[in-house]
This record gives sequence, structure tokens and C-alpha cells, in this order.
Amino acid sequence: MSIKEKIIDESLKLFSVKGFMTTSVTDIIQAAGTSKGGFYNHFKSKEDLYFATLSRARKLWQEKNLSGTEEIERPLEKIKKILENYRDKYLADQHNFPGGCIFINLSVELNDQAPKLAQEVNKGFERLKNMFRTLLDEEKKRGGLAEGVNTRKVTEMIFSGLLGACVMYTADKSKENLDYTIASLTDHLSQIQK
Amino acid sequence: MSIKEKIIDESLKLFSVKGFMTTSVTDIIQAAGTSKGGFYNHFKSKEDLYFATLSRARKLWQEKNLSGTEEIERPLEKIKKILENYRDKYLADQHNFPGGCIFINLSVELNDQAPKLAQEVNKGFERLKNMFRTLLDEEKKRGGLAEGVNTRKVTEMIFSGLLGACVMYTADKSKENLDYTIASLTDHLSQIQK
Repeated sequence: MSIKEKIIDESLKLFSVKGFMTTSVTDIIQAAGTSKGGFYNHFKSKEDLYFATLSRARKLWQEKNLSGTEEIERPLEKIKKILENYRDKYLADQHNFPGGCIFINLSVELNDQAPKLAQEVNKGFERLKNMFRTLLDEEKKRGGLAEGVNTRKVTEMIFSGLLGACVMYTADKSKENLDYTIASLTDHLSQIQK
Repeated sequence: MSIKEKIIDESLKLFSVKGFMTTSVTDIIQAAGTSKGGFYNHFKSKEDLYFATLSRARKLWQEKNLSGTEEIERPLEKIKKILENYRDKYLADQHNFPGGCIFINLSVELNDQAPKLAQEVNKGFERLKNMFRTLLDEEKKRGGLAEGVNTRKVTEMIFSGLLGACVMYTADKSKENLDYTIASLTDHLSQIQK
């Protein structure tokens, strides 16, 4: 692993546990076993590192959550697979995200204190919602949804359910509660399908 | 308003926006227009204030979210009323909670850094979930739910939906998206009722 990658890797953990504001460049340098010179060689500032870290977090998110969805043909089944992946592959990843979901942590922390930085996370939320919406609309187009299903409503519910499941799982660490939440969201998808 | 109440009131706002760890006693003293003496007259420590603030936040939560539920007889309709209140009376309260839902903010911030303090928030989450579960079980007992409805699953979904709706609303400030989420949760409740 290069020094640059090591810095990003450690920042992912530190931001996830301590948050962005309270993690100092010194914390990061120590965790990555490098120097100020080593740091500023790769990043102009902590903000610069923030964007690099988010970008890596997004890649990890996709790897884990979209895994196995390409082989699935039916859009609604793709969403169910993402829900399963989120439960089994993503929230369970204590190595990369020891403090829970980094996107939620950063969004909650930064919305008031650093809106521009928070915006970058929120754009990711929007993209994910759009993906769900597109999949539901495709399913509707091919006649797979029951009469009168509002895809936007379903999208908002699935998305809020995922965010909330993560907040709750980080709080109570109960795999059982998480199983129930995901099962309930999956049930809802089964209820609206034709 | 007494000095003690003023301190709690300002802490509610500061913890909600800046978080607990980064809010100093000095920040609180300044916001409340008092002195160190004035502060320590009422609170042994910042931790002591933390519990008093949470207790006040909980009272506010109940006042807003449970408002009008007592007059409703049917348990399932009580839950729908709470969902509406959450949307219209709670999340909209920019005065007391300028930084979004203080419980979620504190839970996300403190879970790794101060588990004992986070636990106090998480206990509140459990209590709220138990309330939903009890209402759903009562509804089931009186025969108001469709065959085979698992009340625990529904509880977890409603609860995660509420948490997620708050995270998302704090991020995008979109009343429209919030309306869709709450409508979708309410729809789900209507689907399972007999």
C-alpha cells in the first residue's frame, strides 16, 4: 500500500469513529506512520483529503452493496439484493468502517458546521436514491409492479429505512433487529410486486 | 426562565449543532449569558448537564410527537398520528433543534467515543420502539391487523424509517421528500390493517 493509500485508509477509520472536525492532520500522520511532509506531498489540505477519502468510501460502498446485482435481471430483485448486501457485506465491515456508516456520520456532523463538505455526502445520497427510483421505474415499465404503486414513495421509504437501519445498528449492534428491518423492507417490495 | 433552564436550553441547541464533544463549558456559559460559578452552581460537570439536556429533549419529543394521540382510540391510528406529528411538529422545530434530531446526532457522535453517554440515547430509542411494538400488538389483539403480520418486523421498519427520514431531512431539507417518506410508512400501516 502506498503512503497516499495508507493515509486515506486511516482517515476512513478516523473520520468514521471521531468525525472529521475533531480528527487532526497530526492524528492522521500518526495513524499512517508518516510525516507532515509525507502528508502534504499528497494532499493540499485536510479538505483535500476529505474528498479523496469520500471517493474511496464510495468505491467500497459500491463494491460491497452492488456485488452480485449485475447477474440479476429483474430490477426489483436487484434492489432486494442490495438490501441483503447492505446487511451482510456493508454494515458488517468493521475494518473499514469501525464507527458505522461514514456517510451518515459525516452528514450528521457536517450539515451545520461545514455545509459545503456535507453537500458532497448528500450528493451521494441523492445518487443512491436515483438508482433505486430508476430500478423501480424500470420494474413498473415492464409491468412488474401492482396497480397504483408510487415509485417515489417506495424509493423514499427504502432509502430512509436503510439510513435508519444503519443508525440503529451502530447504536444497538443488534444483528437480530437489523435482520427484522431488512426483512420488513424486502416484504414491502414483495407486497408491491405483481 | 431560570439560569438553569437557560443553560439547558442553550445546550440543547449547541449539542444539536456542534455535538457534545466539541461544545465546551465556556461555549455554554457564553450562550447562556452566565459565569462558571453560575454553571457549576447547577451542574457538577458537562456530563451532568448532558443528562439534564437529554431529559429536556425527551420531554420536548413527547410533547410534540404524542400530541393528540390520547384522543385516538385505535392503536394503529395512534402510530399514524405520531408519524404525522414527527413530520409536522417535530422535525420542523428549528428553534429547539436547529441541527436536526439531537438524539440521532448524539447517538452517531458518541457511540464510539463515549459509549456510556450514547447508551442513554439508545435507551430512548428502545423505549420508543417498545411503544410502537405495544401499539401494534394491541391492534393485533383486537383483530385489526391482517393475517400473519409480524409486529416486530413492522416496528423495526417504522422506527428505521423515522430515523432515516430525519437524517435525510437534515441533509436535504426537502419537505417534499419527507412527505413521501411519511406517506409511504403510513401506506404500509394501511396495507397491514384489516
